[in-house]
Amino acid sequence: MNQNEQEKTNQAVGKQTIRFACPPAILSRASIVGDMEGQGPLASYFDQIEPDPAFGMDSWEEGESEMVRRAVQTAITKSGIAKENIRYIFGGDLLGQLIGSTFGLKDFQIPIFGLYGACSTCGEALSLAAMTVNAGYASHVIAVTSSHFGGAEKQFRFPLEYGNQRPLSSTWTVTGSGAFLVSATSPDQPMKEYPRITSVTTGKIVDYGVRDNMNMGACMAPAAADVIYQCLEDLAVKPSHFDKIITGDLGKVGSEILIKLLRDNDYDIEKQHMDCGVCIFDNEEQDTHSGGSGCGCAAVTLAGYILHQLESNEWKRVLFVPTGALLSTVSFNEGQTIPGVAHAVVIEHIE
Amino acid sequence: MNQNEQEKTNQAVGKQTIRFACPPAILSRASIVGDMEGQGPLASYFDQIEPDPAFGMDSWEEGESEMVRRAVQTAITKSGIAKENIRYIFGGDLLGQLIGSTFGLKDFQIPIFGLYGACSTCGEALSLAAMTVNAGYASHVIAVTSSHFGGAEKQFRFPLEYGNQRPLSSTWTVTGSGAFLVSATSPDQPMKEYPRITSVTTGKIVDYGVRDNMNMGACMAPAAADVIYQCLEDLAVKPSHFDKIITGDLGKVGSEILIKLLRDNDYDIEKQHMDCGVCIFDNEEQDTHSGGSGCGCAAVTLAGYILHQLESNEWKRVLFVPTGALLSTVSFNEGQTIPGVAHAVVIEHIE
Repeated sequence: MNQNEQEKTNQAVGKQTIRFACPPAILSRASIVGDMEGQGPLASYFDQIEPDPAFGMDSWEEGESEMVRRAVQTAITKSGIAKENIRYIFGGDLLGQLIGSTFGLKDFQIPIFGLYGACSTCGEALSLAAMTVNAGYASHVIAVTSSHFGGAEKQFRFPLEYGNQRPLSSTWTVTGSGAFLVSATSPDQPMKEYPRITSVTTGKIVDYGVRDNMNMGACMAPAAADVIYQCLEDLAVKPSHFDKIITGDLGKVGSEILIKLLRDNDYDIEKQHMDCGVCIFDNEEQDTHSGGSGCGCAAVTLAGYILHQLESNEWKRVLFVPTGALLSTVSFNEGQTIPGVAHAVVIEHIE
Repeated sequence: MNQNEQEKTNQAVGKQTIRFACPPAILSRASIVGDMEGQGPLASYFDQIEPDPAFGMDSWEEGESEMVRRAVQTAITKSGIAKENIRYIFGGDLLGQLIGSTFGLKDFQIPIFGLYGACSTCGEALSLAAMTVNAGYASHVIAVTSSHFGGAEKQFRFPLEYGNQRPLSSTWTVTGSGAFLVSATSPDQPMKEYPRITSVTTGKIVDYGVRDNMNMGACMAPAAADVIYQCLEDLAVKPSHFDKIITGDLGKVGSEILIKLLRDNDYDIEKQHMDCGVCIFDNEEQDTHSGGSGCGCAAVTLAGYILHQLESNEWKRVLFVPTGALLSTVSFNEGQTIPGVAHAVVIEHIE
């Protein structure tokens, strides 16, 4: 192995982590959300709040696609990068066969990698985007994910028209799409003025045998604990290395389990931990129970609030960990468990 | 930009192609199929033919997961590589929320990237696998996809119990899973004894406005034509550069459209073209109409037949182009079109 090879290989650290030689920059970001999110505590951070649940289209699903289209278009416009210079899109959503992404992204005519990691997809998309530009395969790529309350309830739970009562452990799918323009850097042009992705830790599927689809937090917490533990081990750092350790949509119930599981493994993250699902709604006031969830939850919280905090130097370094519950109505109805998966992305803004 | 960087960046050629500096090797491959495929013309090339449609489990979906598990385990066993040295799995299937892959892959405890590109997913998985090992992020990774006739019909079309009549343009979803162990090479260890992935061309979503879910070939052919055209342009080669140009599951109807579309753009691929969907069944004898289809169709034809032809030097270089139709029952029932996507992978065995 020559030195060039050696250098590249050394980017893989520990069991599951890649530490980038040239940390990719998040050049721009966009967040498009629905009415409910626009009434929540993070409202002022979002690019667009749309009162029409169909986003001017004929159905929730088409509305989700329109939201995705707007998020990507806004991220491109804000970056000032010509669309022709964006080489790939990494995107996904919660709907079966990714129709939210398909119809939202098709008109951009940019080569596409469709992804599915349930609500962890934002972490998966940012990981592959960063891996791609750091390797020199592209100068600019887009990572985007979305979810829609109406479309998700219709697909996974009950028709909204039933007015079904929801248990307190259940979460409220966020209507939102977050898009990120991720760009290559080099030693000569490190782009330190932007938040940069310095490492990614890819999660394994973790199955504790939970079967309650109204308690997704409990399904996902073990996967989040697993990938956070491995990230800390691989990078040989303590939780205090980060200003925040931010999970995607564990909600109140799942967050408690996460903190306990990591404490059992000698890491106490309680001081650093926050959860996008807990932050995005005023869960008491808005009656969203355990918190927000969905592919869009972590994405718009990152695109809106978290990156703002990094850009304005409120925080220097965060561990962003979107969390996903791996089920479909078919697997659930056939009595399968609900395994979880989570992907960790370290984002820093240190000039 | 230093020389190291420059070298890496130059791997991106043309608009949509990456030509690998160190072409990743396909160290091993496995194909697990159902009864129908085991009665087809490629039967002798498959690793396992399973007569039970549920693969010993309780449902088609669990059967598909068992098939995925066997494919990955067989590929690992044949390679002689320890499971612990496999850093990532890139995998996906056709079922909503990828439950085929989730439950088939969870017990391997290998970090996972879930992918969805409909029946093009095998091309997407091999592309990302090759990009990952070539970049030095991993020494060994797995790419795997699957589909199941029963599960797919139940999800996308009609309950099998209806005994619905199928139009002649329709295809027959292949019950099969193909897995590939993709490994890093270096100038010192080029691993020329194995077939190697020398370039990948990532497709865009192409929508010609077709709405007939019983004529998927017509939906996918424009996307296949688009990515094959771009691959030939980016690499600046003629169709005769390849021994074979192999689409995933266009079937007879889609293949004719593909050839015509490329002829309109001054490329004649008729001599080189073959389609996995046309080859995998004896479509007259087995009554499979336009041909086989599904995430498993291209995967098992590659894992079984195509790589055998390359390894035995029958062919030197192929362009492998799995093709996907992007729809769900929801998008279809809401009157949306069926866009296509295809991803091209060049595989060579030139010692």
